[in-house]
Amino acid sequence: MEFRRFDDTCVIRMDRGEEILSTLAALCEKENIRLASVEAIGAVDRAVVGLYDVGEKVYHKKEFNEPMEIASLLGTVTEKDGKPYLHLHATLCDAEMRTHGGHVNELRISATCEMVLRLLPGEVGRRPDEVTGLNLFQF
Amino acid sequence: MEFRRFDDTCVIRMDRGEEILSTLAALCEKENIRLASVEAIGAVDRAVVGLYDVGEKVYHKKEFNEPMEIASLLGTVTEKDGKPYLHLHATLCDAEMRTHGGHVNELRISATCEMVLRLLPGEVGRRPDEVTGLNLFQF
Amino acid sequence: MEFRRFDDTCVIRMDRGEEILSTLAALCEKENIRLASVEAIGAVDRAVVGLYDVGEKVYHKKEFNEPMEIASLLGTVTEKDGKPYLHLHATLCDAEMRTHGGHVNELRISATCEMVLRLLPGEVGRRPDEVTGLNLFQF
Repeated sequence: MEFRRFDDTCVIRMDRGEEILSTLAALCEKENIRLASVEAIGAVDRAVVGLYDVGEKVYHKKEFNEPMEIASLLGTVTEKDGKPYLHLHATLCDAEMRTHGGHVNELRISATCEMVLRLLPGEVGRRPDEVTGLNLFQF
Repeated sequence: MEFRRFDDTCVIRMDRGEEILSTLAALCEKENIRLASVEAIGAVDRAVVGLYDVGEKVYHKKEFNEPMEIASLLGTVTEKDGKPYLHLHATLCDAEMRTHGGHVNELRISATCEMVLRLLPGEVGRRPDEVTGLNLFQF
Repeated sequence: MEFRRFDDTCVIRMDRGEEILSTLAALCEKENIRLASVEAIGAVDRAVVGLYDVGEKVYHKKEFNEPMEIASLLGTVTEKDGKPYLHLHATLCDAEMRTHGGHVNELRISATCEMVLRLLPGEVGRRPDEVTGLNLFQF
């Protein structure tokens, strides 16, 4: 991973073999980034994405171990318990250009990931929500 | 719905049961937002999305009533007839992590919607275009 | 194509018949834009998208000649050999609202394309990478 900061924006290159969530969390921890929006494209050879079932309060996950393009990766960096908290959703394309997607649990880079991180001047936390079972934005 | 503004950016949480287009339109009306870009992720249990047929000048719509993740929601807020005008496209993932998408007519939140709105200092209007039958950006 | 600049952001309308990559490259060349993030929605009637095979170092492409919505178009403008270098990925929806996507080789507009370009104050180049066979961000 390598990045450059331009004003309030970090342009990031992640590299083959790196896992996107953990790489981004480490960068945010190191650079003290606590509020940002994330957008990225790239290519992966392993992905775990899920759908959250509000009724059952559980994520249904699906694992892919094949070359896929990241058509879109969007979400936010906020803060929970003093740590960066990532929430990202992805759309992934397989070799037939069919797409799959969902809540991101794991994305391992095959070629590269090109990410733009917009830093925002402030903080947004997370609070557990009983109705949905999720950690929601707390202002 | 709750939001916080950080400089030129609104970070928004929409909640279970809220419909995204109408909630965003009301926020823009109230806060006098007339030009912005929109990006969001979230989860819905009802969606109506469409494909516009330029030849027939009609939207072909499809309705989903099932849990879906919003993998991406992108678009703009502009102005038409003195009112906020929303144009959003979405990619949605079902329980098999297959994706569907199109022009957004309706999105009802099941869990949460996390949106980032970038306010731009100016105005862009809409003019009806005879060739396509759409309201296009007017500068 | 027509656009308006608001501070560090260009709001762009591309029109029926225009090809998005070449239209954007020409705009960046003319306006001397060398570093930017890109997000767009729209509708096309021809698309060529691909998946990169890192092992074979070749793009597998698929061509679509049918009405499709651009659910998302994301990526970057950087610089290579003194010229704007575009890297965009798309998610496209067909008449059944099924989605397809990948690395963008060609997108011909049927109705409109609404693009937001965020200009960044600096430069990021591209260097050929032997392992992946791609031109990666060079800081």
